[in-house]
Amino acid sequence: MKALVYHGPGRKAWEDVPDATIQEPTDVVVRVDTTTICGTDLHILQGDVAAVTDGRILGHEAIGTVTAAGDAVNGFTVGDRVLVPAITRCGRCAYCQRGMPSHCQTVGGIGWIFGHLIDGTQAELVRVPYADTSLYAVPDDVTDEQAIFLADALPTGYEVGVLAGQVRPGHTVAVVGAGAVGLSAILTTGLWGASKVIAVDTNKFRLATALEFGATDAIEAGPDVVNDVLARTDGLGVDVAIEAVGYPETLRTAAALVRPGGTIANVGVHGAPVELPMEALWIQNVTLTMGLVDTVSIPTLLTMVRSGRIPSERIGTHRFTFDRIDEAYDVFGHAADHEALKVVITP
Amino acid sequence: MKALVYHGPGRKAWEDVPDATIQEPTDVVVRVDTTTICGTDLHILQGDVAAVTDGRILGHEAIGTVTAAGDAVNGFTVGDRVLVPAITRCGRCAYCQRGMPSHCQTVGGIGWIFGHLIDGTQAELVRVPYADTSLYAVPDDVTDEQAIFLADALPTGYEVGVLAGQVRPGHTVAVVGAGAVGLSAILTTGLWGASKVIAVDTNKFRLATALEFGATDAIEAGPDVVNDVLARTDGLGVDVAIEAVGYPETLRTAAALVRPGGTIANVGVHGAPVELPMEALWIQNVTLTMGLVDTVSIPTLLTMVRSGRIPSERIGTHRFTFDRIDEAYDVFGHAADHEALKVVITP
Amino acid sequence: MKALVYHGPGRKAWEDVPDATIQEPTDVVVRVDTTTICGTDLHILQGDVAAVTDGRILGHEAIGTVTAAGDAVNGFTVGDRVLVPAITRCGRCAYCQRGMPSHCQTVGGIGWIFGHLIDGTQAELVRVPYADTSLYAVPDDVTDEQAIFLADALPTGYEVGVLAGQVRPGHTVAVVGAGAVGLSAILTTGLWGASKVIAVDTNKFRLATALEFGATDAIEAGPDVVNDVLARTDGLGVDVAIEAVGYPETLRTAAALVRPGGTIANVGVHGAPVELPMEALWIQNVTLTMGLVDTVSIPTLLTMVRSGRIPSERIGTHRFTFDRIDEAYDVFGHAADHEALKVVITP
Amino acid sequence: MKALVYHGPGRKAWEDVPDATIQEPTDVVVRVDTTTICGTDLHILQGDVAAVTDGRILGHEAIGTVTAAGDAVNGFTVGDRVLVPAITRCGRCAYCQRGMPSHCQTVGGIGWIFGHLIDGTQAELVRVPYADTSLYAVPDDVTDEQAIFLADALPTGYEVGVLAGQVRPGHTVAVVGAGAVGLSAILTTGLWGASKVIAVDTNKFRLATALEFGATDAIEAGPDVVNDVLARTDGLGVDVAIEAVGYPETLRTAAALVRPGGTIANVGVHGAPVELPMEALWIQNVTLTMGLVDTVSIPTLLTMVRSGRIPSERIGTHRFTFDRIDEAYDVFGHAADHEALKVVITP
Repeated sequence: MKALVYHGPGRKAWEDVPDATIQEPTDVVVRVDTTTICGTDLHILQGDVAAVTDGRILGHEAIGTVTAAGDAVNGFTVGDRVLVPAITRCGRCAYCQRGMPSHCQTVGGIGWIFGHLIDGTQAELVRVPYADTSLYAVPDDVTDEQAIFLADALPTGYEVGVLAGQVRPGHTVAVVGAGAVGLSAILTTGLWGASKVIAVDTNKFRLATALEFGATDAIEAGPDVVNDVLARTDGLGVDVAIEAVGYPETLRTAAALVRPGGTIANVGVHGAPVELPMEALWIQNVTLTMGLVDTVSIPTLLTMVRSGRIPSERIGTHRFTFDRIDEAYDVFGHAADHEALKVVITP
Repeated sequence: MKALVYHGPGRKAWEDVPDATIQEPTDVVVRVDTTTICGTDLHILQGDVAAVTDGRILGHEAIGTVTAAGDAVNGFTVGDRVLVPAITRCGRCAYCQRGMPSHCQTVGGIGWIFGHLIDGTQAELVRVPYADTSLYAVPDDVTDEQAIFLADALPTGYEVGVLAGQVRPGHTVAVVGAGAVGLSAILTTGLWGASKVIAVDTNKFRLATALEFGATDAIEAGPDVVNDVLARTDGLGVDVAIEAVGYPETLRTAAALVRPGGTIANVGVHGAPVELPMEALWIQNVTLTMGLVDTVSIPTLLTMVRSGRIPSERIGTHRFTFDRIDEAYDVFGHAADHEALKVVITP
Repeated sequence: MKALVYHGPGRKAWEDVPDATIQEPTDVVVRVDTTTICGTDLHILQGDVAAVTDGRILGHEAIGTVTAAGDAVNGFTVGDRVLVPAITRCGRCAYCQRGMPSHCQTVGGIGWIFGHLIDGTQAELVRVPYADTSLYAVPDDVTDEQAIFLADALPTGYEVGVLAGQVRPGHTVAVVGAGAVGLSAILTTGLWGASKVIAVDTNKFRLATALEFGATDAIEAGPDVVNDVLARTDGLGVDVAIEAVGYPETLRTAAALVRPGGTIANVGVHGAPVELPMEALWIQNVTLTMGLVDTVSIPTLLTMVRSGRIPSERIGTHRFTFDRIDEAYDVFGHAADHEALKVVITP
Repeated sequence: MKALVYHGPGRKAWEDVPDATIQEPTDVVVRVDTTTICGTDLHILQGDVAAVTDGRILGHEAIGTVTAAGDAVNGFTVGDRVLVPAITRCGRCAYCQRGMPSHCQTVGGIGWIFGHLIDGTQAELVRVPYADTSLYAVPDDVTDEQAIFLADALPTGYEVGVLAGQVRPGHTVAVVGAGAVGLSAILTTGLWGASKVIAVDTNKFRLATALEFGATDAIEAGPDVVNDVLARTDGLGVDVAIEAVGYPETLRTAAALVRPGGTIANVGVHGAPVELPMEALWIQNVTLTMGLVDTVSIPTLLTMVRSGRIPSERIGTHRFTFDRIDEAYDVFGHAADHEALKVVITP
């Protein structure tokens, strides 16, 4: 089969590799019908993720079709159309049993293993361990383009942003960073009755998209952003500030936007320490949350996609075939220049 | 009447001042029968709290007796024995109605006003605004020594440590800093079924007291503390790490002790920014909480004190009369040297 | 002033009575600009509510203007436009402090006192006790017609139906009984992300209105209703079944519609015992909730009305002036015949 | 092997049957070292459980040793000492993923299958399906006698009584029925900080045991019980009333004991409809919960047993070997006469 193989920092190739096969009775093999690229894949290519070594097939998101199933797999059979989520779940460790497979102790201490600790989904075939507890069936009335972003981006914005942030009816919400994940948070704030959703970004295309995705306000990032948000929220700030960038400045901005008693939900992936103004924050009764997605909200999100309340397919702005995957990386790697959110990649 | 008056950094005096009187129909005046000193009072004397100005009577904790009540006060009458908590609650602003009077918008944007924005409780008499929604009746079978620490230290450890930290049955808990507030957290972890409570401090007296107050483990602070705690918690760390000191190092220690999915509950008062290792924490699905006490847990704590499950009076290690209040400040200001936790001050 | 006075079962009169006046420093007097009639008023007139005695002014919902304020009232002044909710809140008893003023121990053991234990709102003036903690300001951009149903019907459907029922994103919900309160529940299920909302009623007008108010399905009540609902919910039933009628049969229907692990939220006012099939239900892990409204959700609902997400004014189908209040009762008392939901009554 | 086989109402025999064997790769076979009898087993023998047919091996609780493991079992190997809980969990259906395997859709629509839909644990060997997600390892420092009641009775009292009842620090709790399950609830109320725990029963031995197990009050059931409990709870009743009998009268008693805003947690297994006084209850803002145990609290309970806070072994009052299992049934079937709670049965 063909697959996108990592060969050290800055090097990758769409090349021939041995076919993925069943190794454990709880495995299935999935033929990849649709995949995409995540910001984490770009980090890996920059050499930022030491656990990823030469020879690893990249990618952790897919919609596909089961081509083989181990003897112990009860929930899926050959021919089933499935969603392969970013997180693999053993289903029996303490973390899986509390609904936090992001830290599954069985599959590696962390639930993100595709394209990281085992071969991934940017390939014609992918082996999926713990298939029964990890895969989700895709209903016939949901297209690949609707489903693919439920593998990572949409649940990340929803779980790590909206759920962790404890958005509740009537709340005001700020989302700092309106990329694919920040926009996913914006798309799902309505599920919890947010009354005002303020997008903050430097990019006009993203701000315009935020308004289309359900934001009520869009503010260009700059020195006045804190005052501007306070002015729109009774002078006290928002109930929930979602950080979806991953830099010290943006996290401090989110912290400055939240009112006493509110929540700062960090979604961004950080590469450096962050100095927080605890001398001012300690008395504000705020909560700071952070984390890797669990993908356990996929059934809920799938229901809402089917009901028409979440137009998930709009996150995909550019389409490529496997043989043009290098080009897909280029576009996604310079997303702002191309007015790109996420790319859709198919055979 | 006599009262302890602040006269600028480093200067205070027990001196004659005009008697406290009713100013609003919702006020009562309370004769102070027992008061104490808080770490915040020491900060004020160091000049760290700009809002406290020359002439302010200090103190925000008291047990006393109502000597006068405004026309609109329905819940208390002259002669009633009452607990004056650190936090004043208007009862009608959005923060009071959500049970977060620490940020009461009516009394000053912050609920801590005694000895801060209005005159306090280190005095023979104190005026208590919004008496109906702020005061608590003290039952006959509860002594002043049992009740006085419910005004601030005990609910601070409980609300900002144990409640915010979401301690639950079976949890492991670390408490970094076993002073009066850290020990208050330790005293109340059992209300939520903690299975292991690890106290960390530099002081042997405090560690010994921690074990008496319900800790299962006591560890002297030092370079091995993280490894030591991990070794006692399956290698993953505690479910809840409570920080009760207020320094960057101790908060980072607390952050290093918590397992994926756990909570870091900051109770300490910080005077400087804190650099947090977000590059490691972001993926850990941890929550960081912080805040000023609301004192809304006082009825619960009073019930547990009465039932014998919380020996609150043991927090008071030294006793003084009003005329020796300077000495009380000296002892409390050098608590470790005197093996002191909190002082009890009476007429 | 003029007021609607109860004179025993079946007897009421719009007649002259002494003006409402300030009696306590925490009172205000409100000039009633808009009021309405509740199903409870009809029960009173049938003699079903023993606590209501001859001479009582009826009504417990109003929008009006403050004409006098007691000395202890800080939050409202003469001229303020206010919402008088069905529930009066002292703000200091244990029930008020936990956000459950429906059982305020101070005002009567129950928070519903207007038109019940004290004179009510179907009058030109009404005395409002505990004004600071009970009244809500009405913003200029909200009309009386939008605000009046926030006094009782809308928070009842929302709190006792949607909140108690624990509606969550992706849930399926059945509402048995699509009168004003059932429709209020339907109007607010979207705040918590319900994916499917099934209205059940005998009346075609109400079912048509339910679809306009956000229901996704409308089913005419009858012997097949349980099978019909199961067929629309994977054979297992709904996550939340809201009962908004108040009869044994309708509560049993609601119980039959709910899936294992779901919630039956009883909103209806019952006049007789109900035999529940506990031999079948005990193993279903279902929860049955019930209760009087607290009206504490009014700020949230007001925010959502202002944001345009809840068209509350559509609950008012018929309009009357005070001098035609008998006619208003007739229409509301035979609501189905008149295709009426709630009536709006103004001077 | 030998096993206790059901042969229709009133008939059972300890007889030879074919050995239990691996049937699916996710199975293990466990040699039963300790088992016990549940009230449900008595119901089956009375012919009350139609799903149990002639030839079924009874029992759904065991501590044992793995003697064979299917190819797909990763978490357990031959020789492991394990707890076989009453509930089997597939780990992947929607109910298992929300932590409610009592309604596992895969294993039978209900999670209780041992001694019900498949052969059970009152046997020398038992086949355990979905072993990875169903079994729990038993640590060396926990004896069989400590662990056996964690298979059903203790988690039933805890989950269906204490957890569903939402016991919280400071709460008052009544437990109606102090048999093995009611006593299990009493043993675990302290994990959530109950301040007063009132046991109600007709049997003096059980009431005395209740006091030993943590109850603060013991009341003999009778016509004055409601007044007696109200007198001990400020006249309003308890926060949580746990019903652990399963009769209409006892459930109505529990409902009469609860204060406004409280919870009635039904643990009893009902065989007949129950008439509830909804005409009085609807306005009380009470919640009624019910259900089959999930056994998901076993890790928490095991931790608390190990920490010494739950003396679970005290639930076992009588000991038998397999060959005297008929006698064990006799004693357990007339528990009150024998001052029995639960029996311990070993090879």
